Amino acid sequence: MPDKGAPTPPAGLEETDWRFMAAAIRLSRRHLGRTVTNPSVATLIVRDGHVVGRAVTAVGGRPHAETQALEEAGALALGATAYVTLEPCAHHGRTPPCAEALVTAGVKRVVGAASDPDPRVSGKGYAILRDAGIEVVEGVLADEAADLMKGYLIRSLKRRPEVILKLALSADGKIGVEGEGQVPITADTARRQVHMMRAEADAILVGIGTALADDPALTCRLPGLEARSPARIVLDRRLRLPLGSKLVQSAREVPLLLTAASDAEPARRAALADAGAEFFAVETVDGHIALPELMDDLAARGISSLIVEGGAYTAEAFLAEGLVDRLCLFVGPGEIGPRGIASPVGPDHIPQGFTKLREARFGDDGYFEYARAD
Amino acid sequence: MPDKGAPTPPAGLEETDWRFMAAAIRLSRRHLGRTVTNPSVATLIVRDGHVVGRAVTAVGGRPHAETQALEEAGALALGATAYVTLEPCAHHGRTPPCAEALVTAGVKRVVGAASDPDPRVSGKGYAILRDAGIEVVEGVLADEAADLMKGYLIRSLKRRPEVILKLALSADGKIGVEGEGQVPITADTARRQVHMMRAEADAILVGIGTALADDPALTCRLPGLEARSPARIVLDRRLRLPLGSKLVQSAREVPLLLTAASDAEPARRAALADAGAEFFAVETVDGHIALPELMDDLAARGISSLIVEGGAYTAEAFLAEGLVDRLCLFVGPGEIGPRGIASPVGPDHIPQGFTKLREARFGDDGYFEYARAD
Repeated sequence: MPDKGAPTPPAGLEETDWRFMAAAIRLSRRHLGRTVTNPSVATLIVRDGHVVGRAVTAVGGRPHAETQALEEAGALALGATAYVTLEPCAHHGRTPPCAEALVTAGVKRVVGAASDPDPRVSGKGYAILRDAGIEVVEGVLADEAADLMKGYLIRSLKRRPEVILKLALSADGKIGVEGEGQVPITADTARRQVHMMRAEADAILVGIGTALADDPALTCRLPGLEARSPARIVLDRRLRLPLGSKLVQSAREVPLLLTAASDAEPARRAALADAGAEFFAVETVDGHIALPELMDDLAARGISSLIVEGGAYTAEAFLAEGLVDRLCLFVGPGEIGPRGIASPVGPDHIPQGFTKLREARFGDDGYFEYARAD
Repeated sequence: MPDKGAPTPPAGLEETDWRFMAAAIRLSRRHLGRTVTNPSVATLIVRDGHVVGRAVTAVGGRPHAETQALEEAGALALGATAYVTLEPCAHHGRTPPCAEALVTAGVKRVVGAASDPDPRVSGKGYAILRDAGIEVVEGVLADEAADLMKGYLIRSLKRRPEVILKLALSADGKIGVEGEGQVPITADTARRQVHMMRAEADAILVGIGTALADDPALTCRLPGLEARSPARIVLDRRLRLPLGSKLVQSAREVPLLLTAASDAEPARRAALADAGAEFFAVETVDGHIALPELMDDLAARGISSLIVEGGAYTAEAFLAEGLVDRLCLFVGPGEIGPRGIASPVGPDHIPQGFTKLREARFGDDGYFEYARAD
């Protein structure tokens, strides 16, 4: 998701707390999509107005941010304030929980943003801190922090990934032309934003219609971020994806998951498997893949955030099932005309229950982002 | 795990129910290790003493057994008895829950074995059936059914995979000879049992010492079951696994996960990634990988059952952490002598809290299986 600009300090909040938490939230974004099943959390250790330790959850999800930031701060953590974008963990493993690490390091104040939805943790991390006599301020810029870890929060609470529906629309609300494959709608700056979204997501999904018409790679091709491509998922019940498609050709480098019905052709399945594709078993209802069940299975396999990139039929199916959490619309300046495929949504017809989160311009293209309010 | 032999009918249980449920449990074993994050469940639909529908959870985890068995039974399900090895699911997605499917099909009686630990489901499936006037008998051969879906149950309850520690011991309690790599301890029949265990597990783990000394492939090489090899995991903090090892050479065919510390050499990491290896970020405590955290992460990625195949150091670490759920000992007839590496456990020194589940002979080799009682 594009940067949201500088937040304004909410009323009643200390300027210093707001400023350091906003910085921590910006830092937490760094490893979005790279921390596997853990959220990308940031910690700042601040002493006398200076940052003496800073860290974000390591790539792969461990170690957590708090322990790394405390290690950097060393003895300077004594008497310092810690800014954490998520409540510190409280559950024991072989390593001490982060709440205990903060106590041991001697911080005197902890400012937290989002709360943990995990019932093993919720409230327990803050309780450990308070029991040790540490001053705790909860919920500072909580919404802003939660917005960046929506995938983790939704997967914990609903056992499915956060679903981000991304659509590129022409000025007259069309998403392409039937039978003509990919039609340029937005320009380079918007395209780079889309690739950044891909870098920050766990997986990206398209219907087989789009895969056949556009032959997309669905990878992140921003210079330096090529290794951050999300897993690609194609709704391909009958395994029609060609072996020569960009998706299959790159399956050895970037995971490719195909949702195949159990009666799909064994020979095609074997050929696709040889090329590196993996398969998700799906149930079908009236010939269509059961999306809620698929979301359940993706979450169980560790996928927390999923971008749906079309086409119109797939977008409509996700909307109809009430599975869309975030709607990202890129609107180009040109018109496609009457031959175009109408988008199921647009800035002037947003489904009920969604509220606008942000709006931006990328060159001549407009950007509109909405979140479901629940 | 090897077959447990014919169970004897418990007192007070109808002979028919016991017989059909035992058959259902045998059938449920067919897709062990192949149903991803769902359990391998079986359903028999029985009418007038004849099986009119039978199914096991499909490969990949969907569709569930009940709907498939009902489809096979068709109109014959009306008034029939359904035997289900796990409480039927009650949560709604796009497809109706299995409990509702049984109601719709008109079965008059449902006999269940294990209960579902998932709080979304527990008791709710049976409640749907009873509310519809169906006679429900719960808990028939519950332990036997649960034993085969321990991975699913443990992952649901403890958020970690079932850990199965497998060791091959000489008659004098040794597991190998220092510096000599793999020493033959057991014969072919026992070896095939081990490969069957691999086919039924999601993942298999060894320490880097064993990987270097033995150069194992850790695949299932039973004829016809080659495609059922589990994911291989090596505790390899410093990425010492050679590129020419069998594990790395087969990484394109069977997943290979290496647990690398974040400070492991980037160049080696890149070379191993090119060969198809994947990485798990780990935390270390005093230079050792934090196993409880690793188990947590494996479960979050969908792994429900994990075989630990050694060596002595790794076995001891899992035992010391209290992470072993099942202990499978293969004991060969020969002695290794004083140069051998002593096994941390043996049939005559089983850790506290374990009880013997079964015992068998494979040719000249003995087999002893223990489960932790909790």
